[in-house]
Amino acid sequence: MADEVVLLDCYYSMFGMRARVALAEKGVEYEFREENLANKSQFLLEMNPIHKKIPVLIHNGKPICESLIIVEYIDEVWKDKSPLLPSNSYQRAQARFWADVIDKKVSVAGKGIWSTKGEDQETTKEMIDALKLLEGELGDKRYFGGDDFGFVDVALIPFYCWFHVYETFGNFSIEENCPKLVEWAKRCMEKESVSKSLADPNKVYEFIVGMRKMYYGLE
Amino acid sequence: MADEVVLLDCYYSMFGMRARVALAEKGVEYEFREENLANKSQFLLEMNPIHKKIPVLIHNGKPICESLIIVEYIDEVWKDKSPLLPSNSYQRAQARFWADVIDKKVSVAGKGIWSTKGEDQETTKEMIDALKLLEGELGDKRYFGGDDFGFVDVALIPFYCWFHVYETFGNFSIEENCPKLVEWAKRCMEKESVSKSLADPNKVYEFIVGMRKMYYGLE
Repeated sequence: MADEVVLLDCYYSMFGMRARVALAEKGVEYEFREENLANKSQFLLEMNPIHKKIPVLIHNGKPICESLIIVEYIDEVWKDKSPLLPSNSYQRAQARFWADVIDKKVSVAGKGIWSTKGEDQETTKEMIDALKLLEGELGDKRYFGGDDFGFVDVALIPFYCWFHVYETFGNFSIEENCPKLVEWAKRCMEKESVSKSLADPNKVYEFIVGMRKMYYGLE
Repeated sequence: MADEVVLLDCYYSMFGMRARVALAEKGVEYEFREENLANKSQFLLEMNPIHKKIPVLIHNGKPICESLIIVEYIDEVWKDKSPLLPSNSYQRAQARFWADVIDKKVSVAGKGIWSTKGEDQETTKEMIDALKLLEGELGDKRYFGGDDFGFVDVALIPFYCWFHVYETFGNFSIEENCPKLVEWAKRCMEKESVSKSLADPNKVYEFIVGMRKMYYGLE
């Protein structure tokens, strides 16, 4: 039986993009189903009744939720091509740790920046601190895991198409603060698996302008 | 070379207990180092510079942080005895998902209950809802993964010695709401790996009475 793979996703979601990048790296064909997050489908609610969130990967009818768990699942199931997690247990633990840091710090600070008026310099500082931590971990390596594109790269690169949003509403330059991280992002973007999976930064920006107006009354 | 295993931990921490239970399940000998969280050791700050939190597992000098990542690492390294994660990729993803639900729902609601006056019925309701979700997932199985004690059991069982705290300050009975979950917890407690790793519920209670007074001015 051929694999049936469906991704419930939203174009702008960095979490959905993680799944898209991982599937593209593995060369897995799948059906992309755009969800309207303001009016979620009954199918999404059935597939992820606990969190009711995208992304959900549905593999031969069985749902997998939470983006990092999805990426790890993709890596385990389609293991013959482009391994994402290292084979060494200690390095695997480190990759999981840094992906978790991205969720706990970059993601949280990002939301803080675009959902406020930008007067709160604290969230901007938190974002810069988080990105600097990651830049420190990257060091002079080509990718986070070394020479090959891997798990931490998949976890972080989707945020690159949100950088314009963070910089505009947080009033700072990521390149000035983290030049090596921006170099790394551009290197990742040379990969088709990444460039074709990420949203257009201008569309993300327009989407967020709309979200700020609708949900937070911000111009 | 014999393995050198050190656990930086705090007696009352459910996250530390996860590591203790996993190490006990595997029969790994280790040095337990109690940290004073009000005055963290320089060594802890060096071993976990990002989060500065316990538990940290130090295996032959190399630190691993974040409790679920530690448990997964222990499962991978000492793989010959008591496997914790299932071998099937879909079941592994489900186990990771439910462990993550425990972190996102039970852990958060628990803190909400004991750090307030208990007048906020919302956090109590969140805790009951979260425990009911888990009871639903457990169903009529012996353990979360089926017949054998596994990853989700390790992730959840440490909260059992905090139940008395949640019930007292949230003013509700877990057994009344989730009888099967309490049966499961008692079943887990029959295992020496669990019973010798968990804190004494009365000591947890006394500790929290002190914390409430010191940090929140609550009697």
